[in-house]
Amino acid sequence: MISSKSNAKIKNVKKLLNSAKERRLQSVLVIEGLRLVREASPEICEQLFLSESLSKAGEFDTSLYKNVEIVSDEVFRSLSDTVTPQGVLAVVKQPSWTLEQLSFENGCRLLLLDDIQDPGNLGTILRTAEAAGVNMVIMSEGCADIFNPKVIRSTMGSIFRLPFVTDDLVSVIEMLKTEGVTVYGAALEGSSDYREVEFSEKTAIVIGNEGNGISGNVLNAVNEKIRIPMKGQIESLNAAVSAAILLYHIYED
Amino acid sequence: MISSKSNAKIKNVKKLLNSAKERRLQSVLVIEGLRLVREASPEICEQLFLSESLSKAGEFDTSLYKNVEIVSDEVFRSLSDTVTPQGVLAVVKQPSWTLEQLSFENGCRLLLLDDIQDPGNLGTILRTAEAAGVNMVIMSEGCADIFNPKVIRSTMGSIFRLPFVTDDLVSVIEMLKTEGVTVYGAALEGSSDYREVEFSEKTAIVIGNEGNGISGNVLNAVNEKIRIPMKGQIESLNAAVSAAILLYHIYED
Repeated sequence: MISSKSNAKIKNVKKLLNSAKERRLQSVLVIEGLRLVREASPEICEQLFLSESLSKAGEFDTSLYKNVEIVSDEVFRSLSDTVTPQGVLAVVKQPSWTLEQLSFENGCRLLLLDDIQDPGNLGTILRTAEAAGVNMVIMSEGCADIFNPKVIRSTMGSIFRLPFVTDDLVSVIEMLKTEGVTVYGAALEGSSDYREVEFSEKTAIVIGNEGNGISGNVLNAVNEKIRIPMKGQIESLNAAVSAAILLYHIYED
Repeated sequence: MISSKSNAKIKNVKKLLNSAKERRLQSVLVIEGLRLVREASPEICEQLFLSESLSKAGEFDTSLYKNVEIVSDEVFRSLSDTVTPQGVLAVVKQPSWTLEQLSFENGCRLLLLDDIQDPGNLGTILRTAEAAGVNMVIMSEGCADIFNPKVIRSTMGSIFRLPFVTDDLVSVIEMLKTEGVTVYGAALEGSSDYREVEFSEKTAIVIGNEGNGISGNVLNAVNEKIRIPMKGQIESLNAAVSAAILLYHIYED
């Protein structure tokens, strides 16, 4: 049993929790909690950490996992993000998808995110996108790190189910257009009310940064700008809220 | 100029920032930042605090305010929630509305919140409700304190424009029914797909708690249960996302 916070494996988990660069170098992410760890297949799990209490309670079946470590409750708490940790945490391989996996034959529902910076927003958007039947989420380099623990928690497991890639949005939009996809950007100026737009079977929606909206070059590349009308003195909606309203309006079957 | 953190006025602001009870006792809330302070009328402002820097820069016109205090930058930072404070903070009277202010003559758009506990969700819901043209938000006692600084920040000013009350939801629903309002509860079981429902001109939507949904007695009181269908393996949507999808679907004119 590991009972020291300076154990090399414990120190590595802390590094992975705190550093996007380290997660990228090792191509892993850290997940915590019974539900999320059960969502991830044991095959992608490189290391599993159980608290002494959970291990003794026998409530987590570790037989399919390699590299299982039991950790004293105190050390476990030092890794955990929550006040009352459930006692299970895993280092898992980063899911990896590519744009080439996209199929355009039966229509497509794509979501492009331009510099979404709040981890909670990013996670909520992924969760909503899965619920709305989006095929893939394509993020700009300026988005929050999708393997940030806060993002992972707010996806509620979508991170293991919904394909996503990070790429240059302008190049992606040009590629999508050659495949017959119509790309719509959520913007306030020069745009059509989304309720008056006839959306194509092959659709991509672009949602922009929380403060600045969609960046100029990306907005220039889209086919059409769409707007969510707002009453009162509201100047903009939360990014996850905008995504939800558009996705559920467009992808309603 | 106040240059001590133990000044009585400074200590009172800290108490107000941290304690819902204290805000209730004094019937005030604390707002920070140029934009939010400018949204609030000087008449409801009981105390205005400017940092020394902002005061010297002369960028905030204090002539309409009573009780203006200049505070050293260091003391101001100790009050501020943000890394780079803008240098203005105000103690303002709590807005106060009553159910009696509701009019049912030309239809109504109401939103009832049952124990929404995340301050960010609550604020985002208010912001979205204003944008969707909601007439009043009615919160259960178990909702997060609406005057919590995190709620205020995420409302983006709606807190001063959108009427809200806190009351017992079951009694409110009974009252609404006598006024001819149809009350719809967002729930997963025994419910109709929201896209197949013909909504009434006098509508109230109930959104439930993030983890547990709408509580049993409130759900028993509604006229109809409605559901947002979800693809993939998603079991529920974020509360602010659910509210946004329903409000924009129902109140679209």
